[in-house]
Amino acid sequence: MKISMYQASAPRFANALKNLSAILDKAQAHAEAKKIDPAVLGGLRLIADMFPLSRQVQIACDTAKGAVARLAGVEIPKHEDTEQTVAELKARIAKTLDFLGSVAAVKIDGSEEREVVLKMRSGEQKYTGLQYLMGHAWPNFYFHVTTAYNILRSNGVDIGKRDFIGQP
Amino acid sequence: MKISMYQASAPRFANALKNLSAILDKAQAHAEAKKIDPAVLGGLRLIADMFPLSRQVQIACDTAKGAVARLAGVEIPKHEDTEQTVAELKARIAKTLDFLGSVAAVKIDGSEEREVVLKMRSGEQKYTGLQYLMGHAWPNFYFHVTTAYNILRSNGVDIGKRDFIGQP
Repeated sequence: MKISMYQASAPRFANALKNLSAILDKAQAHAEAKKIDPAVLGGLRLIADMFPLSRQVQIACDTAKGAVARLAGVEIPKHEDTEQTVAELKARIAKTLDFLGSVAAVKIDGSEEREVVLKMRSGEQKYTGLQYLMGHAWPNFYFHVTTAYNILRSNGVDIGKRDFIGQP
Repeated sequence: MKISMYQASAPRFANALKNLSAILDKAQAHAEAKKIDPAVLGGLRLIADMFPLSRQVQIACDTAKGAVARLAGVEIPKHEDTEQTVAELKARIAKTLDFLGSVAAVKIDGSEEREVVLKMRSGEQKYTGLQYLMGHAWPNFYFHVTTAYNILRSNGVDIGKRDFIGQP
């Protein structure tokens, strides 16, 4: 037995995004308890020249759907980056989860050696499916999920590692 | 072809830890340029009740060596948590990399269904090797590497996503 590319991608991204959605519920409850405008949270940043919470959540979603679509060889669904409130960010996650759940495992399996081309500001980058998933998509995805967590956590939302890990 | 448990563990943790070590080099250069005491960086936090940089790096190292040792069924090497300066934290990473490189792929491969028992504050948690690696070790590892990055980034160290991703 070995790990399949499906096992290492869609359900793992989905699990972390569900945890992030539950973290956003706690953020929403915090905002209501403290009478914070719901749009304020989406604009919070760790420092002025880092992306705000809204963009962190959007990029986490984009990384998950981009990875699954590229590995499966299907078109990446386009989601406009218009979310500002916590409720809107949760809807963005839900849309992403719908897409992740819509791609059949058989499309992703066997993509270890499939060529993946990323268009970066620095030009095109080519990876094998395995290298792209493990060396690019995972770290990038968890980077943005963690940064979203850190923005909320450092602004006083009562969340802990258990919320981040959820049910492995 | 499928992914092996080795491919999904030791080399991936090692890659991210090497990137973290290079990020610490930039932190050190920043501290020297700004005449910041080398021990100050290790004590920086995002908020008072989160762990400081030193502990984030230690836990990232512990997560990597714990995962590889548990999957391989070998004893987890004990590293005392005494590091304070950036140089000491880099040495901690180097020790961890030495251990990750010392475990043969063949010991880790085939551990998908191996039972892994974690002793948590809440009691014992049992996982399969696959569930433990993907649902616990990866997110936990990247959580602490990202938080170390965020602490430095939000304190003005000139680092970017490229430093975090490195060479996939």
